Amino acid sequence: MPEKTLEDLFHDTLKDIYYAERKILKALPKMAKAAQSSKLKAAFEKHRDQTEGHVERLTQVFEIIDKPAKGKTCPAIDGILEEGAEILKDYKGTAALDAGIIGAAQAVEHYEMTRYGSLKRWAENLGLASAVRLLDATLKEETKTDMDLSALADASANPKAMQAAE
Amino acid sequence: MPEKTLEDLFHDTLKDIYYAERKILKALPKMAKAAQSSKLKAAFEKHRDQTEGHVERLTQVFEIIDKPAKGKTCPAIDGILEEGAEILKDYKGTAALDAGIIGAAQAVEHYEMTRYGSLKRWAENLGLASAVRLLDATLKEETKTDMDLSALADASANPKAMQAAE
Repeated sequence: MPEKTLEDLFHDTLKDIYYAERKILKALPKMAKAAQSSKLKAAFEKHRDQTEGHVERLTQVFEIIDKPAKGKTCPAIDGILEEGAEILKDYKGTAALDAGIIGAAQAVEHYEMTRYGSLKRWAENLGLASAVRLLDATLKEETKTDMDLSALADASANPKAMQAAE
Repeated sequence: MPEKTLEDLFHDTLKDIYYAERKILKALPKMAKAAQSSKLKAAFEKHRDQTEGHVERLTQVFEIIDKPAKGKTCPAIDGILEEGAEILKDYKGTAALDAGIIGAAQAVEHYEMTRYGSLKRWAENLGLASAVRLLDATLKEETKTDMDLSALADASANPKAMQAAE
């Protein structure tokens, strides 16, 4: 077995998140369409546009390490999105739908946050300053999206789901 | 279709994380065994003991809402752990193994953090004060574990994987 180093781990994880981002790009319009509140719809549409930028930044990181932009099946994001699709189906037309969609979307954000966090730390170790900047820019947007979703849950989705429970 | 409320979402997500915690309980000894550094082994062993406590706390939350402690297949954690198992296999015996295991373990922690975060918020909405305390105690331990793993990556696993790359 050939020796594997941090460079291999960085490259493998880059392929993992590249696959994940492109899957997320396809899932977000479905979440926007399913969302009941117009604010939540708008949040998903905004994040879809951001996600296009994340894919573009990843292609730049591939260029920095002189590798082709190529994905690698990521069972984690497949599982997380499968659970999200179950929520859309099981809670369709109910008062708790938006609360459920927000929970599912935050699971996606947290997966991205942990992967971008690792990639950024590894890029620092590898001395890839431009990659660090690109990865950090996306990490900040994912973290902000997660916080915005919490705020939407508190302000409207959860109280709405509660009213129906009373 | 019967109306679904925040109570249903809380219960469904509780079953999801109960399944996930018990899967994690089985995965942690494998990660401890595979880890090269004694500090990382010890971190996984400590977290395994904590995870037993997390399962116990979840059974208490099931009691609070007067439901049987029962899991529900969680494709997200299955996918995340599948990726972790791939890392163990692909990086076995290499300098980047511990860095890879830490990344995989942090993906697990982030999944738990987002689920416990949602559950805690929903328990607050539902006025389940005792459940909020239990969920918050676990959320704090998962967050601390994630930070401890980042510190171990910075202090030893990543530099070690780097040396081999030079």
